[in-house]
Amino acid sequence: MSEAPIGIFDSGVGGLTVARAILDQLPNESTLYIGDTARGPYGPKSLADVRTFSLETLDFLVNQGVKAIVIACNTASAAMLRDARERYSIPVLEVIAPAVRRAVAATRTGRIGVIGTRATIDSKAYLDAFAAATQLEITSVACPKFVEYVERGETSGAEITQIARDYLAPVIEADVDTLVLGCTHYPLLTGVISYVVGNNVSLVSSAEETAKDLYRVLVENSLLRDNKSGPATHRFLATGDAKSFETLARRFLGPEVGRVEHQDLT
Amino acid sequence: MSEAPIGIFDSGVGGLTVARAILDQLPNESTLYIGDTARGPYGPKSLADVRTFSLETLDFLVNQGVKAIVIACNTASAAMLRDARERYSIPVLEVIAPAVRRAVAATRTGRIGVIGTRATIDSKAYLDAFAAATQLEITSVACPKFVEYVERGETSGAEITQIARDYLAPVIEADVDTLVLGCTHYPLLTGVISYVVGNNVSLVSSAEETAKDLYRVLVENSLLRDNKSGPATHRFLATGDAKSFETLARRFLGPEVGRVEHQDLT
Repeated sequence: MSEAPIGIFDSGVGGLTVARAILDQLPNESTLYIGDTARGPYGPKSLADVRTFSLETLDFLVNQGVKAIVIACNTASAAMLRDARERYSIPVLEVIAPAVRRAVAATRTGRIGVIGTRATIDSKAYLDAFAAATQLEITSVACPKFVEYVERGETSGAEITQIARDYLAPVIEADVDTLVLGCTHYPLLTGVISYVVGNNVSLVSSAEETAKDLYRVLVENSLLRDNKSGPATHRFLATGDAKSFETLARRFLGPEVGRVEHQDLT
Repeated sequence: MSEAPIGIFDSGVGGLTVARAILDQLPNESTLYIGDTARGPYGPKSLADVRTFSLETLDFLVNQGVKAIVIACNTASAAMLRDARERYSIPVLEVIAPAVRRAVAATRTGRIGVIGTRATIDSKAYLDAFAAATQLEITSVACPKFVEYVERGETSGAEITQIARDYLAPVIEADVDTLVLGCTHYPLLTGVISYVVGNNVSLVSSAEETAKDLYRVLVENSLLRDNKSGPATHRFLATGDAKSFETLARRFLGPEVGRVEHQDLT
């Protein structure tokens, strides 16, 4: 058993959907979330920059004594997962592999769609993760506008429905039976996405799958917190402006976001 | 378009997982939730009593001017869905059919598990809903202790894992590839359930599927709220003690639960 918190890292607020799935499934675990908002979003940055920023942020979490790290950021995971695993002796989890494993288990036809930000899709990280399963046919589509609509809270109505129709046309055309939501913002769009692709398509949320993966890792490494230890604690840090992070974070996660603290890394 | 709230009804707090999925996917919609805690849980009650209590509670929601009703309670849905559809002219949704449709779409082998409270499993409501698909092999198991563990927040650790292993042995034995979480409390147990049944089994949450169904019904009936109408409002009523409901509700749903109001129905 370990009383130490779980470290959760993203370049912004998106990783809070992962944090929420963790709080739901592991309500007895303490968490320490950091959003590198001063330097995020990482999408438009070079791979080398993303690697440097991510490792700096993870070093901070490890120095705070976390017992496991969750890289809740597709871009960062694609850039530096292996570096992180080499660098730290605690378990390092991320969002791509759990979603890919679930999609492979879920598909009946072998036709799988992946949607994500431009940076994630261009990185081909999902294609690499699916590569071993050669019988699969993967259709990847970047949906660059989805994040801003989620952050504005505009996830229903004619406008987002039309945008979703346009973005998702290639995956509908490819007749996928499973669709990976390859961006941590997208679980808040499952209503419109499911409406557009139809109920026959299984949606895979990387947030939910990552939390399940963490559950398994904590159990198998005997790292669960003692049920008799009293209430878990949850801290939220942002390297940029704490106030604007707080507003968005409440929408993503809920009441566990009390006060967001500013944290300088450099 | 309609500014009216969505009415959500359960005998207790469990329906709040449905409410949360609705708030996530339709953040622009106002909601009015009522938990009939003075007379719940409905599980041990007779069918006739459940029908009477449920229709009384739904009458109250309809009189408050809701534009659609979500019966977020498996027991109530099994008892009176048809009565409600006959009685009201607004759309009436519930939790069983959306989960069943998703499970039928998801299964590859045709072997599906259903878990729920004793009352839900004994009612055979899921077996009835699956009946049309004669090629399926359904394994249903009652998991009576799960609800109390969720309400205590004890969803990880050796004890709940052992309980889950015992309950889920028949569905593992039956080699299901899809498992319906047929109780609104169970989405908070996906970590331990997934750990016990293995990652190859697709979990279907009736909360998530019901919210997708509501999304579709609101769009198709042109009942979505205008995006330009300003913030949505969320009210939470309990027919029993408001304070104890509030404490549990915060854990299930989050910050949108401001104050819970007491509401007499009789």
